[in-house]
Amino acid sequence: MIRIASILAAASLILAAPSVQGAETAQEKANKQNVVEFYNKALNDKDFAAASKYLGPRYTQHNPVAADGPEGLRGFIQFLRDKFPQSRSEIKRVFADGDYVIVHVHAIREPGTRGRAIIDIFKLENGKVVEHWDVAQDVPEKAANSNGMF
Amino acid sequence: MIRIASILAAASLILAAPSVQGAETAQEKANKQNVVEFYNKALNDKDFAAASKYLGPRYTQHNPVAADGPEGLRGFIQFLRDKFPQSRSEIKRVFADGDYVIVHVHAIREPGTRGRAIIDIFKLENGKVVEHWDVAQDVPEKAANSNGMF
Repeated sequence: MIRIASILAAASLILAAPSVQGAETAQEKANKQNVVEFYNKALNDKDFAAASKYLGPRYTQHNPVAADGPEGLRGFIQFLRDKFPQSRSEIKRVFADGDYVIVHVHAIREPGTRGRAIIDIFKLENGKVVEHWDVAQDVPEKAANSNGMF
Repeated sequence: MIRIASILAAASLILAAPSVQGAETAQEKANKQNVVEFYNKALNDKDFAAASKYLGPRYTQHNPVAADGPEGLRGFIQFLRDKFPQSRSEIKRVFADGDYVIVHVHAIREPGTRGRAIIDIFKLENGKVVEHWDVAQDVPEKAANSNGMF
């Protein structure tokens, strides 16, 4: 069921992707789908074996709290399994430009908490994820506007 | 000189934009240029009058510490002028997908400090900026990998 839910979530995201004015290449479309599936396998299913199939020959990591390479991802997924088994990452928006895919995510480590806003940038080569940057910020209790962080 | 530097910075960024595999529309290209110019006018030149020319009929703000609308931007620019006149924002990467432009930025409020990594998402309508989301994170002193946040 988790696998089907992930595929459905990925499909609905692809359908809900921003308007692209007819310019999206087949590779950009595939890159978006690959990143959404990779993200769900890694952060929601917490399944390194499934997620690693989306990785290319390297995984250059720029997140300062994650170790480099596929082994860093494996360690991070294990950390989530151990410490935050109920954590959920909901992709709110997905964009593609050439070899890059950007996702805007609401990540909640413990149910009932406000969680964090995260924007990830993935670089792909031949449809495989090879590099990752991200920025994360706590969703505050109060804000100076009523629009929400998403 | 500041204006010329901004234009040159904008031009060099456009030239250094990610490979787009021939799929970028003229509107996406213009949107990238408009956002880079808007960003430099607002955050480096700190010139609300110049920046506001890039805004559309609304400016829906999702940054939780900024007030909504053009007046929120005016207030934020005034805050920078008053408190951090030497602050600089360097755009490292710029992406476009349909009506959206995403920038990955190294923002330094006081010279000599490590600053923050920021990823902004702008929505444009007819080439004008109408909505903004962002996420910001301090660049840490030490990291679990040697790749840097950018």
